Amino acid sequence: MTETARGTSHRYGTRPTMKDVAARAGVGLKTVSRVVNGEPGVTPDTERRVQEAITALGFRRNDSARVLRKGRTASIGLVLEDLADPFYGPLSRAVEEVARSHGALLINGSSAEDPAREQELVLALCARRVDGLVVIPAGDDHRYLAPEIAAGVATVFVDRPAGRIDADVVLSDNFGGAQAAVAHLIAHGHRRIGFIGDQPRIHTAKERLRGYRTAMADAGLPVADSWVSLGPTAPDRVRAAATAMLAAPEPVTALFSGNNRVTVTAVRVLRDHPRPVALVGFDDFELADLVHPAITVVAQDSAHLGRTAAGLLFRRLDGIDDPPQRLELPTRLIPRGSGEIGPPEG
Amino acid sequence: MTETARGTSHRYGTRPTMKDVAARAGVGLKTVSRVVNGEPGVTPDTERRVQEAITALGFRRNDSARVLRKGRTASIGLVLEDLADPFYGPLSRAVEEVARSHGALLINGSSAEDPAREQELVLALCARRVDGLVVIPAGDDHRYLAPEIAAGVATVFVDRPAGRIDADVVLSDNFGGAQAAVAHLIAHGHRRIGFIGDQPRIHTAKERLRGYRTAMADAGLPVADSWVSLGPTAPDRVRAAATAMLAAPEPVTALFSGNNRVTVTAVRVLRDHPRPVALVGFDDFELADLVHPAITVVAQDSAHLGRTAAGLLFRRLDGIDDPPQRLELPTRLIPRGSGEIGPPEG
Repeated sequence: MTETARGTSHRYGTRPTMKDVAARAGVGLKTVSRVVNGEPGVTPDTERRVQEAITALGFRRNDSARVLRKGRTASIGLVLEDLADPFYGPLSRAVEEVARSHGALLINGSSAEDPAREQELVLALCARRVDGLVVIPAGDDHRYLAPEIAAGVATVFVDRPAGRIDADVVLSDNFGGAQAAVAHLIAHGHRRIGFIGDQPRIHTAKERLRGYRTAMADAGLPVADSWVSLGPTAPDRVRAAATAMLAAPEPVTALFSGNNRVTVTAVRVLRDHPRPVALVGFDDFELADLVHPAITVVAQDSAHLGRTAAGLLFRRLDGIDDPPQRLELPTRLIPRGSGEIGPPEG
Repeated sequence: MTETARGTSHRYGTRPTMKDVAARAGVGLKTVSRVVNGEPGVTPDTERRVQEAITALGFRRNDSARVLRKGRTASIGLVLEDLADPFYGPLSRAVEEVARSHGALLINGSSAEDPAREQELVLALCARRVDGLVVIPAGDDHRYLAPEIAAGVATVFVDRPAGRIDADVVLSDNFGGAQAAVAHLIAHGHRRIGFIGDQPRIHTAKERLRGYRTAMADAGLPVADSWVSLGPTAPDRVRAAATAMLAAPEPVTALFSGNNRVTVTAVRVLRDHPRPVALVGFDDFELADLVHPAITVVAQDSAHLGRTAAGLLFRRLDGIDDPPQRLELPTRLIPRGSGEIGPPEG
């Protein structure tokens, strides 16, 4: 068995055990356990023999075993929507930095915007005994998490709230940001403004739509059904929606795009469009200032979202037992050119 | 104890156990174990009682325990350099998709380009009994991994090779891509071409520098020391390097930027520069075609890198025991405008 453990074939379950270390060092199992866990009561000479056996065998203390004994692993899980969406990069990095400052490992995974996959991933992380979770939820029913939270897994939601359970959440001011974006377009003379957003079941998409409608209503402007398109952010869908709004008998003169995935496709559609059309995008993104015209955006601070959520999580892990909190971070309108284009009429 | 487990305070180590389930269901521990692990020998009525107890207590089978028994967990780890670098987004997502198609969970973490942190993270993942690892190494000595690999943790390196151990690796053709980029600038009339790259200890930075030097030598062109700058990709460092090359008595007329982090800063510097300067960047990136002028790049297929590495990993996990492989994927020069600007002299 020990020989197999040192072999090179890729097989499961052939790792050297404490027993192997004890046999090689010629000591008892309890002595190996003391050395491995840094407990007192071992002579320097014995400790050296055990360490040599550990090195020779490639033995590594199994954190899973410690977890089972102590009920604690220094790790937190982060479930996000898409590893490739640049919005989540700074958020993930911020969570990781906070985790690291607390000596914890960050474990990431993505739901691909699928509620079943979110649940599978969350429960898999819980089964691996993460201390806590930061979740960007895909689903809107998180009752499946209630037993985990009750059992001590601190959980903070970020970007979107939990559904049907009471839990900490850190959000951006999606409503206010969207309202400001659309009010900005209205202030530049637009009356027919299109909104292309994410899937309507997603909290942020709903809130941004509400901000759009409120800004239009506040200005006394009607909203035609054909000016609102919600759905997946896949380029084909966004392109079709934008093209339809621009080709209508009374075309929109401005677009408000509901997130960075929508914006990058909208920019491509508008580049090929014969008339200038104003654009404000929700979410800032790298190079938004270098595109021509530079893109006016409503910026969220995704690193700040991540830092705040992780900070709240570690407060919970420190035993702070306040009622669940709902924090909302401000957004910021950054005028850069695309949102200051007026309508063709003047 | 059971009451505590159902409480709401955030405390560790208070989860319901199989013993709690057995007590509540009025059955033996072995029966609970059979139900939890889907083994035969339990009557439907007993199974129902056990399931009810599981639900009532919020008991969840602990994968860590199964791992210890079976030596196997369906999970693989991915260690990358920076969660916020867009190069890694499609790579991570591709690895995750392959993992998922094999029923495995992907666990991510980042080294922040720090060899000590890479090692800490890799060993933490090994201690959590991942079946395999995909590693974008920060360090250049991976002997610390040899006992893990020998003990059965399949490991595939991607983007950069392992140091001082023999392991599977999937790379881009960094040398060939860089050579093609610089030859392209030379073909457009440039003689004084600057190279701004990543830190020289990083494999990809070294290979791209070698490609740059080879293309210059092949064209019979000298390389002044001041035309080469390697270092961190932080915007300030890149900005200073580019500015110095452009302000010299005989300024460079073209820049080759060594990765997407360098390119985005170079684009900003060139935007503010009075004369047009040609630019080719290593790595494609979103919106590179929408900046003015559009950015000519040497594109790597980072999703392909991830897919290939993950595919190789699961071959290893399936027991394929060939000698370690080194795969090199081609790059592609995409002319878009910035790389086709000629030098001021003609």
